[in-house]
Amino acid sequence: MFKVKVHILLKDDVLDPQGKTVQNALDHLGYKGVSEVRIGKYIEFFSAETDDKKLKESVKDMCQKILANTVIEKFEYAVEKI
Amino acid sequence: MFKVKVHILLKDDVLDPQGKTVQNALDHLGYKGVSEVRIGKYIEFFSAETDDKKLKESVKDMCQKILANTVIEKFEYAVEKI
Repeated sequence: MFKVKVHILLKDDVLDPQGKTVQNALDHLGYKGVSEVRIGKYIEFFSAETDDKKLKESVKDMCQKILANTVIEKFEYAVEKI
Repeated sequence: MFKVKVHILLKDDVLDPQGKTVQNALDHLGYKGVSEVRIGKYIEFFSAETDDKKLKESVKDMCQKILANTVIEKFEYAVEKI
């Protein structure tokens, strides 16, 4: 059994209007010095797969096919045996 | 200068219909053994704050006041000097 953690973020050269809005809101509320806010998705799940390598391949495949939009998003994942 | 990473997830006892939908989609696409999919937000930003302790307090405050809905969401944050 593994716990899988996936981070999906907009690519660095893609504008993040949601992040910009949050940044402005934080600034208005008095949290100064905050910059480059980027908002992404965080997905975690458990997998019954027993082979570490196979699981990583499978998660990469999931990210490319369904979890992330690879045209504008980048992803990172980590698996952890539990 | 610090890099701040915030994870916001629905509390464990709150249903996550988006996660359930993704789980069903993964299952239909042949990724078996996936369970308890939870989908949350991942926010990262830079802070010009120089004091580690003050920054952590400030980030906790941001999470409670604006980034997370603490009625149904929990949050975790990490700061990293860069």
